[in-house]
Amino acid sequence: MTDRLLAEGRDAYRHFTPIATRWMDNDVYGHVNNVVYYSWFDTAVNGMLIAEGIAGADSPEAIGLVVGTQCQYFEPISFPTPVEIGLRVARLGASSVTYRLGVFTAQRTASHASGVFTHVYVDPRSRRPIAIPQRHRERLARYALPDA
Amino acid sequence: MTDRLLAEGRDAYRHFTPIATRWMDNDVYGHVNNVVYYSWFDTAVNGMLIAEGIAGADSPEAIGLVVGTQCQYFEPISFPTPVEIGLRVARLGASSVTYRLGVFTAQRTASHASGVFTHVYVDPRSRRPIAIPQRHRERLARYALPDA
Amino acid sequence: MTDRLLAEGRDAYRHFTPIATRWMDNDVYGHVNNVVYYSWFDTAVNGMLIAEGIAGADSPEAIGLVVGTQCQYFEPISFPTPVEIGLRVARLGASSVTYRLGVFTAQRTASHASGVFTHVYVDPRSRRPIAIPQRHRERLARYALPDA
Amino acid sequence: MTDRLLAEGRDAYRHFTPIATRWMDNDVYGHVNNVVYYSWFDTAVNGMLIAEGIAGADSPEAIGLVVGTQCQYFEPISFPTPVEIGLRVARLGASSVTYRLGVFTAQRTASHASGVFTHVYVDPRSRRPIAIPQRHRERLARYALPDA
Repeated sequence: MTDRLLAEGRDAYRHFTPIATRWMDNDVYGHVNNVVYYSWFDTAVNGMLIAEGIAGADSPEAIGLVVGTQCQYFEPISFPTPVEIGLRVARLGASSVTYRLGVFTAQRTASHASGVFTHVYVDPRSRRPIAIPQRHRERLARYALPDA
Repeated sequence: MTDRLLAEGRDAYRHFTPIATRWMDNDVYGHVNNVVYYSWFDTAVNGMLIAEGIAGADSPEAIGLVVGTQCQYFEPISFPTPVEIGLRVARLGASSVTYRLGVFTAQRTASHASGVFTHVYVDPRSRRPIAIPQRHRERLARYALPDA
Repeated sequence: MTDRLLAEGRDAYRHFTPIATRWMDNDVYGHVNNVVYYSWFDTAVNGMLIAEGIAGADSPEAIGLVVGTQCQYFEPISFPTPVEIGLRVARLGASSVTYRLGVFTAQRTASHASGVFTHVYVDPRSRRPIAIPQRHRERLARYALPDA
Repeated sequence: MTDRLLAEGRDAYRHFTPIATRWMDNDVYGHVNNVVYYSWFDTAVNGMLIAEGIAGADSPEAIGLVVGTQCQYFEPISFPTPVEIGLRVARLGASSVTYRLGVFTAQRTASHASGVFTHVYVDPRSRRPIAIPQRHRERLARYALPDA
């Protein structure tokens, strides 16, 4: 139904967000629950956008709505191991941007999980898709891999 | 990168799990955060498995590990609107089962979001994939659509 | 350090909010994590305020800020058992309201946990405490116990 | 109903746990939701116990059950500001230990919130209270303030 996402190395990503795991992230099996990975993706993308000055109050001209997300899980993680979330811009379209994300720990070189996260840019009032503003586009382009 | 999931009607699902939204599910935009949908999918699948007697203490012979999940979001939802999560078995493989999930409210006929959730069955000790036990297979088959 | 909260019966509460538990609410010990109870309290209070028309967009004149919460846990709960959250107004002050909350299931008559939740009303702009508006006060008073 | 917890400085705590905030921690008002603070307290206490070798698989002789928690909120926090959770042992009883917790950021000297968290030690099988094992007691005593 979907293309399989593969584990990747850190060199496949342009930006890393360190995040502490939390006790309640662990499920009955003692591993971080599958849902929690998406809170990390969400945090990595929004944290980058805020740092770049293109989100929230700094972006009155456009809002990014989440239209699709995906994750494949290769190797479990348990609290209290901290994670680092790798991020790259995989596709910068007319009105949407698709990120690829990787979950890393100090325990292995390859990612524990790979994710996809797509924002569509909309007008804050009409909520209709709009072209990604040029200011956003320039910032986002820096997170693409050179040859991607 | 992935096939697009489409909004579907309730007749595309075989089982429904009612779930209350929670105040903290809403994000800064006043809509349920994208992450929360996966907690609903997780709840719908595991709730069905527990009710069928093929999970946790009732399933010492096999554990379902989550290896992949996916969601596409069509129409936002806000607390306090309650949701119903539709579930069907979309693919029953040798050692894995893939569910399709739909998020419904009383506000519209079509789903607000469509999801995919894949379990691989593993041996509880070795954590290596095993054939889905026949007892599980029979139960799971009931959740497939007749002509799917 | 604090007065001990006691388990109570359903007659100690004026309003009940049914909430489904979620798979990820369970922790490593197979019980709903202590943190999750507060998401139920938050949901019960805000759901009531929204239903009464005295929250969010319906309350441009005052915002309730959470200044204190508390919970004591008497008997564990596990997914998929649904809960009902009992609520009463325990103290209606000049600018603050304190709720008492109880967590109930079909499994026992007494509450599984007892909670306290205090809102201070503030001006939406200055964020300084204000007298609870009369319209809010009238609605909130209905949730006090007759002899409380 | 409860004694008021006060804001404190960092010198009131013996141990600090840095935790990243997450995008979905923010609520509709753009502040970290009151519930999330308890996930930080839970993480600080359990992380310390794991590091000390007196939790989970390292503690087959005793389990700490959460019997009471409390928090007072003085100053809001917003993602992406990271927090540090201060911890001290406030009371080491026969079978229970009460922690005091403080939420700090780089934005102010005093704590943003103060918390209380009480574990009762129980036998893993009977779930009845037991004396805190001596090995645990020695480790926990190190987290009390010298003159507390």
